[in-house]
Amino acid sequence: MAPPSSQACAAVERSIRERVPPLLTDLYQFTMAYAYWRAGRHNEPAVFELFFRDNPFGGGFSLFSGLLDCLLFLRSFRFSDEDLEYLRSVLPPATDPAFFVFLRELDCSNVTVRSAPEGTVVFARVPLMEVSGPLAVVQLLETSLLCLVNYASLVCSNAARFRMAAGSRRKLLEMGLRRAQGPDGGLTASRYAYIGGFDLTSNVQAGFLFGVPVAGTMAHSYVTSFSSLEEVWPHTLMTANGDHESIDLISLTKGWLRLVCELLGAEPGKIREGELAAFLSYAVAYPHNFLPVIDSYSVSCSGLLNFCAVALSLFELDYRPLGVRLDSGDLCRQSVEVRRVFRLCSERFSIPAFHSLTIVGTNNISEHGMAELNLKENEIDVVGVGTHLVTCTRQPSLGCVYKLVEVRGSPRMKFSEDPEKSTVPGRKAIYRMLDTEGHPFLDLLCLREEPAPTAGEAVKCHPVVGDQTCQSITPSQVTCLRLDVYIKGQISQPMCSTAETREKVQHSIQNLHPRYKRLEEPDTYTVAVSEKLHNLIAEIRKDSSNDSNFLLAN
Amino acid sequence: MAPPSSQACAAVERSIRERVPPLLTDLYQFTMAYAYWRAGRHNEPAVFELFFRDNPFGGGFSLFSGLLDCLLFLRSFRFSDEDLEYLRSVLPPATDPAFFVFLRELDCSNVTVRSAPEGTVVFARVPLMEVSGPLAVVQLLETSLLCLVNYASLVCSNAARFRMAAGSRRKLLEMGLRRAQGPDGGLTASRYAYIGGFDLTSNVQAGFLFGVPVAGTMAHSYVTSFSSLEEVWPHTLMTANGDHESIDLISLTKGWLRLVCELLGAEPGKIREGELAAFLSYAVAYPHNFLPVIDSYSVSCSGLLNFCAVALSLFELDYRPLGVRLDSGDLCRQSVEVRRVFRLCSERFSIPAFHSLTIVGTNNISEHGMAELNLKENEIDVVGVGTHLVTCTRQPSLGCVYKLVEVRGSPRMKFSEDPEKSTVPGRKAIYRMLDTEGHPFLDLLCLREEPAPTAGEAVKCHPVVGDQTCQSITPSQVTCLRLDVYIKGQISQPMCSTAETREKVQHSIQNLHPRYKRLEEPDTYTVAVSEKLHNLIAEIRKDSSNDSNFLLAN
Repeated sequence: MAPPSSQACAAVERSIRERVPPLLTDLYQFTMAYAYWRAGRHNEPAVFELFFRDNPFGGGFSLFSGLLDCLLFLRSFRFSDEDLEYLRSVLPPATDPAFFVFLRELDCSNVTVRSAPEGTVVFARVPLMEVSGPLAVVQLLETSLLCLVNYASLVCSNAARFRMAAGSRRKLLEMGLRRAQGPDGGLTASRYAYIGGFDLTSNVQAGFLFGVPVAGTMAHSYVTSFSSLEEVWPHTLMTANGDHESIDLISLTKGWLRLVCELLGAEPGKIREGELAAFLSYAVAYPHNFLPVIDSYSVSCSGLLNFCAVALSLFELDYRPLGVRLDSGDLCRQSVEVRRVFRLCSERFSIPAFHSLTIVGTNNISEHGMAELNLKENEIDVVGVGTHLVTCTRQPSLGCVYKLVEVRGSPRMKFSEDPEKSTVPGRKAIYRMLDTEGHPFLDLLCLREEPAPTAGEAVKCHPVVGDQTCQSITPSQVTCLRLDVYIKGQISQPMCSTAETREKVQHSIQNLHPRYKRLEEPDTYTVAVSEKLHNLIAEIRKDSSNDSNFLLAN
Repeated sequence: MAPPSSQACAAVERSIRERVPPLLTDLYQFTMAYAYWRAGRHNEPAVFELFFRDNPFGGGFSLFSGLLDCLLFLRSFRFSDEDLEYLRSVLPPATDPAFFVFLRELDCSNVTVRSAPEGTVVFARVPLMEVSGPLAVVQLLETSLLCLVNYASLVCSNAARFRMAAGSRRKLLEMGLRRAQGPDGGLTASRYAYIGGFDLTSNVQAGFLFGVPVAGTMAHSYVTSFSSLEEVWPHTLMTANGDHESIDLISLTKGWLRLVCELLGAEPGKIREGELAAFLSYAVAYPHNFLPVIDSYSVSCSGLLNFCAVALSLFELDYRPLGVRLDSGDLCRQSVEVRRVFRLCSERFSIPAFHSLTIVGTNNISEHGMAELNLKENEIDVVGVGTHLVTCTRQPSLGCVYKLVEVRGSPRMKFSEDPEKSTVPGRKAIYRMLDTEGHPFLDLLCLREEPAPTAGEAVKCHPVVGDQTCQSITPSQVTCLRLDVYIKGQISQPMCSTAETREKVQHSIQNLHPRYKRLEEPDTYTVAVSEKLHNLIAEIRKDSSNDSNFLLAN
């Protein structure tokens, strides 16, 4: 079902071009670019880093996503005449017309990106991407890159948390399109929720564009649109193997319904005829895919009984019904009751498969509610999650930032009234230290020119948060967290399909030690700077408190 | 600057076609449509209503937005061959091939929409839109319409709350693109934040497409990219009227800086040369638009002094600098200090305008933080809001739903395990009752065939929440909350530009009594059903507890 990588990427690239034109950015990128251009600084080599300051959702890690979109954006970055005409109308009238000629020629052919691999577990304050190139160009890219990474990484991380809360047994269905920030918010959510560990989406366009497996059967409106068995048409069905002539499904099911009522001691008078009609009509249309929503009226007095009767008819005709969906009330309690009835039917009518029909639960489930499923008795096999997944209710923004770290080969650092808003200067290499069991335990930010740490050799490092005391650590393995992904206008890594990136995510999470994966109060993963980088920071701080007395000169 | 309505609408329509293809929906819409089609019910006339169940943000009202996008979506609703090929691959293999022929021919030429006007104050449980047409078609529209209304209305309402919290004096700048749910989340946020009462956006594409006024000057990266006055080029500037030859701005500003340091007793050694260079370079590029961010190092020890020096130079050359931006720390406290220094400069150097330079504050401001600005001493003139506005942190989803209320002329009602998930059946007329002062005080849901309530005449009504006791009320005026906006495939109302809709919003909010507008614990606006509708609900409930004994028949 999944389109091949190249085809999928072409679709993504087209969509990026349409959705992320170069004007989709903050105005100040243009005023700054103009000021650089005016001062003749626009081609100075500059380096920016993209990172976030706190792991989301009170967790111990995040996932890095959105990289492919960024690279496709860079590849198609060009201003149209229409764009420039608009810019001319909003930039101050004093803007030199030659600046627009400069913009017209601009592209990302001199831009280089080094980054962590997409789908990797990452930590606060470790740069995810390093974007280098002509100062004016890399400045112009800021907002678009942040926009593409921020939400993708956030929703992917959120999905991974739901996945961990759910355990590996349950299937997870994403169904948040209607509650997302408009069409593309929903599409991004479906794609990155899948990458983060969901199994299915309700979003058809996400299936079409990215090959995400899609699922869904019926809403309440379908059920309530029926009022009488007379609306069921056709009401005959062949057996699954086509051996027998058409059977009248209505009388067959009425027979089963009587037996189900007897078995459960249910009151036939409370059963909704319209609901039965809806189920029958759906079963006739999709006898292999019968999974109705059973709470339009009352699960125990009507929906469950109607389901069992239709399912028994389908079994009799050698079809295999799928199960039921619960969409309101106490899902755990109801699922236990549903499973009990499935078992009774299974035993009474000697249909072993009836016992293990699927129970889908969907009712505004939060991560907390998902975690509770492991504590409360329940029989839910598939959980649908919408609002809390796509809006990331608990923390709706990752807060990625994009900071200048070097210009013309000289390191840059931002101080700030808020100390945690200060930046780590200089062009870096980033290494992940693994312990003897292959678990990462420390990310080390070094200056780019430093030799890489060596497995089995002690290395000094200074944690970036906390008391900052120097540690000496000895990694069993060292991996590099920076790939060359975009070199001078070309994407320089194979592009992964959505499914491939999803694999990488699962692998990266598996490698992480459980102490960093606890949903609440995880251990803090250590992020540190090398001795050399530590010294550079100290030097810049010292210089800064002792600035050149330029006022006295001249 | 704003494009004319028709041009703006063409741009919006193109963007809707690209962003909201008919596959951007939940799979179950197709499985249901198939089941209807298979049963020959696809052309039965059906009516759906779109509404939300709780006013957002703990407030007393919401705003209705996203209608124009819905209508443009309906107008362009058609499946392509590529869409159908994909659907064929994901729908069960048993799907009759003729169904895809049916889908290929489908459009919204038989769909009719009646709705509240876009930009109106609306309340929980009052249907915003009524969508009627062939059952299969109006079912297929569900997710897309919800997706277009949900976030637009939510962010518009959020913006209106920020506007109310800020008071009318302060200007509000939306700057959330980088923190939104991807590119289109950011674009939708910028558009509807403006409609909800913001004055400006940082988002250039929102300006380009929708004519929203754009603003922005510089980021910290611009400031930290400079390290020495040698990078300022050119360093000369003509006077504003062009009378004089070019003046050396560096020496002029150094002179002013000495005077400023004297005036304020500041230590020249702490002033950052790079920051001054950045300010000078920007001033040379945009002497009429000088508004730097002054907290890259230290506001009081460097940024403010550098600003004052450059601003004094600009005043001397007859330019009018704009002001400063503060982006970290305690904005209130700093703004007071900045204003104090502005006043001192104004007095000491006899420049009255210096006192009233603009102070922009941007630092992760929430609605609560905005409301605090009215309680704490501060001098902030313009507030920039990003994350909390676009992600609607306090409630990131409005929770609109789309429910079937009538099929083949017969009312439909959903019961539920959660009583508040039950629906109000039947095709309706909706009236807003105004008091003698022209304030709305009650929305009345009637059956469509009932005569409209008359001004000055008592009418019985039953509140939909609370104790449900019958009331008699006498409106001074009655307005209808349902316009015919889409009739048989045609948009039947003039399309409003973004700015026109913004006007409507402001007007609608102004008309609302303050007791419903309190940000915390507002009064509850009454939503009621007419006597006739009340009786219909009772009748359906009675019938439902006493369903036809279809089991016994036959």
